[in-house]
Amino acid sequence: MRRPAWLALSLALAACSQPIAEQQERRSNETLSTIHRRRSVRSFTGAPVERSQLEQIVRAGMAAPSAINKQPWAFVVVTDRAQLDALNAGLPSAKMLEKAGAAIVVCALPGEAARQSRDFAVIDTSAASQNILLAVESLGLGAVWTAAFPDEERMRIVRQTLGIPEEVLPLNVIPIGHPTGAEKPKDKYRADRIHWDRW
Amino acid sequence: MRRPAWLALSLALAACSQPIAEQQERRSNETLSTIHRRRSVRSFTGAPVERSQLEQIVRAGMAAPSAINKQPWAFVVVTDRAQLDALNAGLPSAKMLEKAGAAIVVCALPGEAARQSRDFAVIDTSAASQNILLAVESLGLGAVWTAAFPDEERMRIVRQTLGIPEEVLPLNVIPIGHPTGAEKPKDKYRADRIHWDRW
Repeated sequence: MRRPAWLALSLALAACSQPIAEQQERRSNETLSTIHRRRSVRSFTGAPVERSQLEQIVRAGMAAPSAINKQPWAFVVVTDRAQLDALNAGLPSAKMLEKAGAAIVVCALPGEAARQSRDFAVIDTSAASQNILLAVESLGLGAVWTAAFPDEERMRIVRQTLGIPEEVLPLNVIPIGHPTGAEKPKDKYRADRIHWDRW
Repeated sequence: MRRPAWLALSLALAACSQPIAEQQERRSNETLSTIHRRRSVRSFTGAPVERSQLEQIVRAGMAAPSAINKQPWAFVVVTDRAQLDALNAGLPSAKMLEKAGAAIVVCALPGEAARQSRDFAVIDTSAASQNILLAVESLGLGAVWTAAFPDEERMRIVRQTLGIPEEVLPLNVIPIGHPTGAEKPKDKYRADRIHWDRW
């Protein structure tokens, strides 16, 4: 029996489509989508953020890895309007606090870190901060990492406003809120930054 | 009409169940699950890792935020067995390379960072590394962050083995492979590390 050309083509396409579909699925799981959808959100509606969501967000931060599992971190979660305004008044870099529903200050504890290293405390809290940003995005909220460390003056203001001890490094202030939708994700892929097998 | 007690109870339970279900759903999106399921995987089967998956993983790394969007990073992706063995020979901290299918070395470029700051380069590449670990987990693979920075000797060995320039800081060596299933996630939640509104 001779098959018409269109049937042969259809069969060939059908045979191809399954691996392609599988590959597509591998390319777009929900975690990868969140990683690529996350963007720095600076425009908030002013709506509050639920305490239960803030708990989930901080819990995600604590799931980060740390050198020798030392977990050299602590978190100040701010929802009180007066405290948010006080941070805003002292930090020109964190004006987004005005309409944020909350903020998380991720604190590095060098005394608790592997080898009591400031570097490890900063590395570990940076990983925790990234978990926080992704958790925020996954919940339909928005956030932006505004740096405190390594700026001594910004760290002083954050410590003073929130009563953070001198030996603790406030790594950042992360305003969190409901996005207005003003910001879109950027494509930051650069093939020239990938080296295969050697530099 | 008088309702029997069991009917009243059933109706009360039905009225309660919807908000609880919604809350459960909020608590467990796929991204949060990946964040909590991720663990340091040190036991690999020895199976290779596909190049297309490594590309997805590095792409996720590059989606991290960075201070003033400077993206002060580069990635050496190693799949060549001789190179993996050479890294393994020099790094007692990275013995998991023996059965890993690949490794990614996340490199910090202080010269490219905001204010040309070593600290910002380390912070930004730490966030990128966390994205890499989560992408790995989301693809059903496993990985472990073994530190190179701030250890001068480890950084020297990594630079020498992979031909990385002197001014570049190899932050870590991340062996990646197919997990044997030996490791389970840890619950690292500590309520005493959360401060509400002030320290």
